[in-house]
Amino acid sequence: MTAAGGMLASGQNMALAPTPILDPTRIQGAATSATGARSPHEALARLQPPAYKGSISLTPLEALHGTITPADLHFERHHAGVPQIDPAHHELLIHGMVGKPLKFSLDHLKRFPSVTRTCFIECSGNLNTRAGEKSSPQMLCGLTSQSEWTGVALRTLLREVGAKPKASWLLAEGSDAAVLARSIPLAKAWDDALIVYAQNGEAIRPEQGYPMRLLLPGWEGNTNIKWLRRLELSDAPFMTREETSKYTDPLKDDTARLFSVVMDARSVITAPTYPQVLEKGWQEIRGLAWSGRGRIVKVEVSIDGGKSWQLAHLQGPVLAKAHTRFTLPWKWDGSPTEISSRATDETGYLQPTRRQLIKARGPGSQPYHLNPIMSWIVQSDGQVIYKAEPWV
Amino acid sequence: MTAAGGMLASGQNMALAPTPILDPTRIQGAATSATGARSPHEALARLQPPAYKGSISLTPLEALHGTITPADLHFERHHAGVPQIDPAHHELLIHGMVGKPLKFSLDHLKRFPSVTRTCFIECSGNLNTRAGEKSSPQMLCGLTSQSEWTGVALRTLLREVGAKPKASWLLAEGSDAAVLARSIPLAKAWDDALIVYAQNGEAIRPEQGYPMRLLLPGWEGNTNIKWLRRLELSDAPFMTREETSKYTDPLKDDTARLFSVVMDARSVITAPTYPQVLEKGWQEIRGLAWSGRGRIVKVEVSIDGGKSWQLAHLQGPVLAKAHTRFTLPWKWDGSPTEISSRATDETGYLQPTRRQLIKARGPGSQPYHLNPIMSWIVQSDGQVIYKAEPWV
Repeated sequence: MTAAGGMLASGQNMALAPTPILDPTRIQGAATSATGARSPHEALARLQPPAYKGSISLTPLEALHGTITPADLHFERHHAGVPQIDPAHHELLIHGMVGKPLKFSLDHLKRFPSVTRTCFIECSGNLNTRAGEKSSPQMLCGLTSQSEWTGVALRTLLREVGAKPKASWLLAEGSDAAVLARSIPLAKAWDDALIVYAQNGEAIRPEQGYPMRLLLPGWEGNTNIKWLRRLELSDAPFMTREETSKYTDPLKDDTARLFSVVMDARSVITAPTYPQVLEKGWQEIRGLAWSGRGRIVKVEVSIDGGKSWQLAHLQGPVLAKAHTRFTLPWKWDGSPTEISSRATDETGYLQPTRRQLIKARGPGSQPYHLNPIMSWIVQSDGQVIYKAEPWV
Repeated sequence: MTAAGGMLASGQNMALAPTPILDPTRIQGAATSATGARSPHEALARLQPPAYKGSISLTPLEALHGTITPADLHFERHHAGVPQIDPAHHELLIHGMVGKPLKFSLDHLKRFPSVTRTCFIECSGNLNTRAGEKSSPQMLCGLTSQSEWTGVALRTLLREVGAKPKASWLLAEGSDAAVLARSIPLAKAWDDALIVYAQNGEAIRPEQGYPMRLLLPGWEGNTNIKWLRRLELSDAPFMTREETSKYTDPLKDDTARLFSVVMDARSVITAPTYPQVLEKGWQEIRGLAWSGRGRIVKVEVSIDGGKSWQLAHLQGPVLAKAHTRFTLPWKWDGSPTEISSRATDETGYLQPTRRQLIKARGPGSQPYHLNPIMSWIVQSDGQVIYKAEPWV
């Protein structure tokens, strides 16, 4: 048979063959699925800086909207990798200065009154002080993420084991290969600490501590011990490796801050930022602000290099110790300029400048608890770059 | 060389070989990843009832915690499958009774002031009236899910196109193969309607309308048009197929309710429910309550077959038109009993009984807008089953 009029042997007319679905109303769509997947047009990934050899991955802050971080994009910081834990073989032991030491399985924990709370977790080392101008928010400070967490109030378990009145500290220990451990003042445990088993509706992800982690709202990430296996009550801190050799802040008088665990107020613009190229006209300046001490009450944005500041809109509900979305409409006229944001929390604390931080602590106070106002330079061609300045 | 003392040629002593990781502290864990995955010990999936041939999948309500539904577990209801849409070829046209018809690309939409809101979407047909006693909440009413949505207020776009004062309705049309379309009173558009492009922090998933959908907080799922491509303003409803042949409620006087779009207040116990087997002692009764008319103000739980009711705790923040988690501690003594929940919303509306619903609308008023109090029978062996009763 001869292929006539452009018809191929298969009967398909190439001239009429559909091009990649330009009109989706002409084609039956895909059936339902057991679990969904992202659109292939949306590339979302945690960045894994090679220098950290698989121990750090960063949330793509500039690609996200609202305040929830998808669980599979929550930043990671592991000290000995992500353990594989079968919950059937995992227990949380609470012992030390208690009336009755107890072990809790995951199933046992789930029988206690549950508490749900949305808050951020931020690594205390969440600023790349050596970043260049071609740096995105993810590269600069992607070590902060937010989830809706569910678990048991630690105070509920302290009552269950009969915490002794003289107990004033607890050791929290993970079951990773680093056996990461931190000393926590018991006041925090009685206040708002949780033992959480769920994140954004589902079981905690392995990288975030499956099957259970300590959640200390507002406190630096490493104290929120993942893969939690032991809490030991005592009347003094344990002075673990993580609070002597690490996670202290050298000061300019050659002393160091110990147990500087609360994350100070901070804001980060997420749009426009590198690598975005701006068009003239109306757009929205967007970002996230948060404080480990409570609610954000104010975010100010400057579009003129810090000469003047405008109040940004805060998206409600504004929750304590939670990423809060701020926005400000902005009509860009094409002139080069510099944009910045600064947050104030309910204690009255105003996010400092880089200069103020260096002056207060000295240039050697790195890499922890650095929350400076960050600025972005908008060039006349619309390219946005980070205002990179040395930490001196 | 002879293998001595049980040593194998490879040098590995089988007697000492590690069993599957019982002590994860002895083994370096996995490195970071670009995107995370669930623990293999957590099986989570949408149920796809075969009778619906790939057009319905159900959220596993009983497996979830807190209030957020993971995006890949959000229920699905498609009329012609999930279209694959390249946002580069997608636009939203707003026309009809407007001063200036306009098309909006995804990039264009993202330049407008953004709004983030957490709310449920529920299918109006969210009750399996033929379910048997071996039914889980997922099987009974898994057509409701909750997300943190981000997008543009529709009123912002109505101002942009110059909606004419006499316009009182709009047609919302999707670009799926069903070209699903609904008439929406313009008052809802001016009130709290959004055009959303993000869900739980990231781009909307394809099954939920990528790249953009209409969000009508509190209104039945099908009006929240997915894959939205067109809004046409008019001064009368369009009487589409979906509001004549479907999505109306037959009443007992042989008339039918049209445009019954608001989802009435409802509550669902998620634990304990089938297929759970209870142990004696303390546990927590948990569930979700929501109303399309505003906030939930009260959830009452009965543990004695409806003879008495106790106030459940509502987990804050309690948001309007949002799934609200309720909890009640309960010590089960091993006696057979029946547990139920009922919600009251801020309008004073109390969730009705099955009898009240049938009396008001007639037994033929199916399958839409059925929100009866549901009960669970706890047997003396701890097995929990659904109290299945015919819809007559």
